[in-house]
Amino acid sequence: MMTTDDLAARAPRPAGRPRSQEADLAILTAALDLLIEQGATQTSIEQVAKRAGVTRATVYRRYADKTALLVQALQLAHHDDDPALTGWRDLDDMFGDWAGHISVPRNRVLLRRVFGTVDDYPELIRAYHEANTGRRAAVVREALLLARDRGELPAHIDVDVVADVLSSAVIGHLVGRPDDQSAEQIKAYFLTIMKQFGYRPVTKGSEKI
Amino acid sequence: MMTTDDLAARAPRPAGRPRSQEADLAILTAALDLLIEQGATQTSIEQVAKRAGVTRATVYRRYADKTALLVQALQLAHHDDDPALTGWRDLDDMFGDWAGHISVPRNRVLLRRVFGTVDDYPELIRAYHEANTGRRAAVVREALLLARDRGELPAHIDVDVVADVLSSAVIGHLVGRPDDQSAEQIKAYFLTIMKQFGYRPVTKGSEKI
Repeated sequence: MMTTDDLAARAPRPAGRPRSQEADLAILTAALDLLIEQGATQTSIEQVAKRAGVTRATVYRRYADKTALLVQALQLAHHDDDPALTGWRDLDDMFGDWAGHISVPRNRVLLRRVFGTVDDYPELIRAYHEANTGRRAAVVREALLLARDRGELPAHIDVDVVADVLSSAVIGHLVGRPDDQSAEQIKAYFLTIMKQFGYRPVTKGSEKI
Repeated sequence: MMTTDDLAARAPRPAGRPRSQEADLAILTAALDLLIEQGATQTSIEQVAKRAGVTRATVYRRYADKTALLVQALQLAHHDDDPALTGWRDLDDMFGDWAGHISVPRNRVLLRRVFGTVDDYPELIRAYHEANTGRRAAVVREALLLARDRGELPAHIDVDVVADVLSSAVIGHLVGRPDDQSAEQIKAYFLTIMKQFGYRPVTKGSEKI
């Protein structure tokens, strides 16, 4: 005998499958929110289902386990149109963009949750690294190379080491500084580090000359 | 009616209180081990008592709650004679010392556990910062200033920013690099960063000249 689920699976699906997509989004949103609020260890499939207003079975039909669900939920946080992926005008623009992102407490906590569970849920940081290497790492590199070409950074500077230091500086800021700093303060933090590498931005004034 | 505990509390204590000290150490060791193995969230007073071979009451007599216990257990990890506190010969010596410490997987996991629970157990990172600011921060600063005075770092370098970058680099290494790197590889990682700041160590050969 066929169940209604079987019938639904065989029936031609209406365009967009609104009800299923709604459940998808509710599940991923609940998972992301719980990851931020209480971390991966404390989050259960049961809690996610409850908050999303679906049954556990509905969640398990989509994700084999909690880790798979959380990895997918992380992608949701990346779904926004990321200006980083199109590159930045210059380093000033890049640091302004970074500072804007990590001045938002919710973003700070999410990143800490990902970095903080590397020993229990290495899949989360792997998913994060995959999203941040590739295209994103390439545009950071391009921005640093462009600055070097313009003479804003010393000719001998190793842009890969600088990119690596900046990634660590982001994490260092997340765990070592208060969550109430403004984007301006955080941008100044990056610029202070860059200054030690010999970064001397071409000001708009001097460009005119 | 007095309990044996009350009597024990009133009786003159034998020098060293060996049995009590033994329990102290067993409790703190169990707490530190569990913190490393499974993190603060997953660790309970009950587990600590079980592993230490004491009753829960024995633990609660010493510590008001899990957080107080874990903070004290963290001190245990610092109890070893720390060569850092007496200062280093030079930056090469300092980075060798740091690299030795963070090449030990157990140390790496412990630090990740502390940094990873900043949202749930801020007391842990506070205790860590307290142990690492003060004297320890001062000797790092001294080593950087000495290097600058010797001409190993550019005269204009801001040693506080460099110290901050290095702290972040440690955390970046803990979360971004594999746990099987040798102390030599990790030392090279620090030196690569320092090179970008214009660090040019005075070699023993050139000292002779």
